[in-house]
Amino acid sequence: MLKAETLAIGTELVSGQSLDTNSQWLARELGAIGIPTLFHQTVCDQLEENVSALRIAAGRAGLVLLTGGLGPTRDDLTRDALAAYAGVPLREDPASLEAIRAMFARRNRPMADRNRVQALFPEGAEPLPNRVGTAPGIWMEHGGVAFACMPGIPSEMRVMFFEQVVPRLKARSWGTRSIVFRKINMFGRGESEIEAMSPDLTARDRVPEVGITAHQATISFRIRGEGDTPEEALAQTEPTAALIRERFGDLILGEGAEDLPEAVFAELRRTGATLATAESCTGGLVAQMITALVGVSPYFLGGVVSYANSAKAAFLDVPVEMLDAHGAVSPEVAEAMAAGARRRFGADLAISTTGVAGPTGGTPEKPVGLVYLGLATEAGTQSRRLEIGPEQPRDIIQHRAAKNALNWVRLALRERPGKD
Amino acid sequence: MLKAETLAIGTELVSGQSLDTNSQWLARELGAIGIPTLFHQTVCDQLEENVSALRIAAGRAGLVLLTGGLGPTRDDLTRDALAAYAGVPLREDPASLEAIRAMFARRNRPMADRNRVQALFPEGAEPLPNRVGTAPGIWMEHGGVAFACMPGIPSEMRVMFFEQVVPRLKARSWGTRSIVFRKINMFGRGESEIEAMSPDLTARDRVPEVGITAHQATISFRIRGEGDTPEEALAQTEPTAALIRERFGDLILGEGAEDLPEAVFAELRRTGATLATAESCTGGLVAQMITALVGVSPYFLGGVVSYANSAKAAFLDVPVEMLDAHGAVSPEVAEAMAAGARRRFGADLAISTTGVAGPTGGTPEKPVGLVYLGLATEAGTQSRRLEIGPEQPRDIIQHRAAKNALNWVRLALRERPGKD
Repeated sequence: MLKAETLAIGTELVSGQSLDTNSQWLARELGAIGIPTLFHQTVCDQLEENVSALRIAAGRAGLVLLTGGLGPTRDDLTRDALAAYAGVPLREDPASLEAIRAMFARRNRPMADRNRVQALFPEGAEPLPNRVGTAPGIWMEHGGVAFACMPGIPSEMRVMFFEQVVPRLKARSWGTRSIVFRKINMFGRGESEIEAMSPDLTARDRVPEVGITAHQATISFRIRGEGDTPEEALAQTEPTAALIRERFGDLILGEGAEDLPEAVFAELRRTGATLATAESCTGGLVAQMITALVGVSPYFLGGVVSYANSAKAAFLDVPVEMLDAHGAVSPEVAEAMAAGARRRFGADLAISTTGVAGPTGGTPEKPVGLVYLGLATEAGTQSRRLEIGPEQPRDIIQHRAAKNALNWVRLALRERPGKD
Repeated sequence: MLKAETLAIGTELVSGQSLDTNSQWLARELGAIGIPTLFHQTVCDQLEENVSALRIAAGRAGLVLLTGGLGPTRDDLTRDALAAYAGVPLREDPASLEAIRAMFARRNRPMADRNRVQALFPEGAEPLPNRVGTAPGIWMEHGGVAFACMPGIPSEMRVMFFEQVVPRLKARSWGTRSIVFRKINMFGRGESEIEAMSPDLTARDRVPEVGITAHQATISFRIRGEGDTPEEALAQTEPTAALIRERFGDLILGEGAEDLPEAVFAELRRTGATLATAESCTGGLVAQMITALVGVSPYFLGGVVSYANSAKAAFLDVPVEMLDAHGAVSPEVAEAMAAGARRRFGADLAISTTGVAGPTGGTPEKPVGLVYLGLATEAGTQSRRLEIGPEQPRDIIQHRAAKNALNWVRLALRERPGKD
């Protein structure tokens, strides 16, 4: 059976200045097509060490995936190391050189002479086009081992892996077993609460296997299905997924990458409702999470980041007397902000945030981590109080507040009928 | 010179289910006391693979730091692997067994029989007490190589490293040097351009050594200083840091974690100016980047996310005729948005973004990745055109546009006198 090894190249990685996440990602993706990864190595930007690591990897794996060392600088030695390992010279590939030139031209930037080295390949190797960056990758087979060299930049590496490396694996009938991980995401309860509600699901040796993970207060079940085809692997997970959906109902946001923004977007599409935001302590994060999604513009009209009190008055019609009487962090102001945004944007719903994101600015009555949310709909306005905890760092308080705001929008939208 | 290698053990790590952060942490800590780490390996929970990895590590490093595989389950094989590698039997250590019993007693939990294996050590090895968990670590020297085995749980590993491993290194006169890394961050030029401007800095064998890294279009020089004390190590970097500051001037954002938002904040503090934002394609990201900083509220008044054209008119006074004539993605609208935000918020400066974030919505005249920025100050309004590239994903286009917007604010602020 084919075994894989990853080789992450970079002095900044091996010295601990940066964290390599490419190896984990690649191992997971290889696992999904049935190729086990048995070793990872991380090595510095030194030719001798790279060649030695290649030799070790080739001695225990049939597929070696390298990341990094393909840039234009002197430190980028993957091309040289692979050529030295295989005992072949480097040759310039005219098509790759043209692609690099074209990429610079599209960006209206001069191509430095140094970038020319990115068109060099070990003799007998095949260039892997880089659709989203300048560094082409390398595919090479030598001594019965296949080597795939990809850029270290994760976004470029991922595109190249899916578009260039996986088809070459399949062409060799590698990676034909299908393993799917199905992730069902929830929001609104803690990890241990969810765990206590599901001992049957997480029991050892259960088929299919189910795990629980948590990321920024989103809790996920991960179901592992296996089969000869993706359909068969998926089918194995289906009864478990149905059980989870039934048991956790409204807590469920969606599957896979679907977190709160995606769940809100799905409800906006279903209902045809429009949304606006009025943010104080989250400073634009709620709007940014929504506008990160493709195609949301018919539903998201916009938002106000009313950081200064004067902006709360000028843009959202929050009465100055209310700000004076209750302070900006109050249920009254949260509701007035939401109502003002709803009216000014002409939206069906508006959500607001106002709170103490810290680490300073807390008082005994209004400690760091206290946040009020406001929701305005045609039925009126409401507010909610969150206590995220004074011990939490600013970014966690802002994220947690934003996610709770989105969750409230989601639950409010769920009560509305579909637009048809 | 002593070289180190890390060996992270765990099938969940090598298969990509979990991310190993121990190796990075250990490499950084070893680096800080002058021990370079040249390789990391990650291996699965299999005896044969562990022994093979130990053999490879011992062949190229004088110090091998293992993490994981010390628990009580059948999958925990570090003890066995080390004994097999050294060709010695395992022996029970009474003191360690007692410590494990005591730990269970303190937590009022029964000790499972399986936990007894955690008191087994390869003959000739030294137990490393675990003050915060049940699994003791292992220190062993064999064939001129020192092995330190620590738990995989990061919090336990860190305590054991500082309390047990570092003193043993010092006792052997290892790790007595001080090494600092100083990172100087820049924005506004590509990595290869920066490199072309600094062949003298990045030359091999230069002292102190300088490297270049890139993260989301922020380019950084990393200067490595070394000395007998932390002060001496820092002093070694100073002439190089001064040279970089002189040569790259306005491109420089700051040091360490200081990226564009921090650099803008520093200029806001210096000048006492106030800022507002008007965002379309960045959807709140510029405001969110600024409000992620502690203490920015006196300078940042707020922003409008004018996603819908009606919001551009209602909140920013962009004339409807202008939107009709030029389209929302135009220099005219970018300037009108900035001017409107400046006037409505009463800010000294306002920055705006309007563009095609994609992946859909592009036209031949206005392709995906086309973004206009607008800047309004008391001197008037200006616009700038960015072409980020239609091949870039939405999040990169949004981030790149937001960083360019912040950079323009930074450069505009730099031309202003200090408030005193």
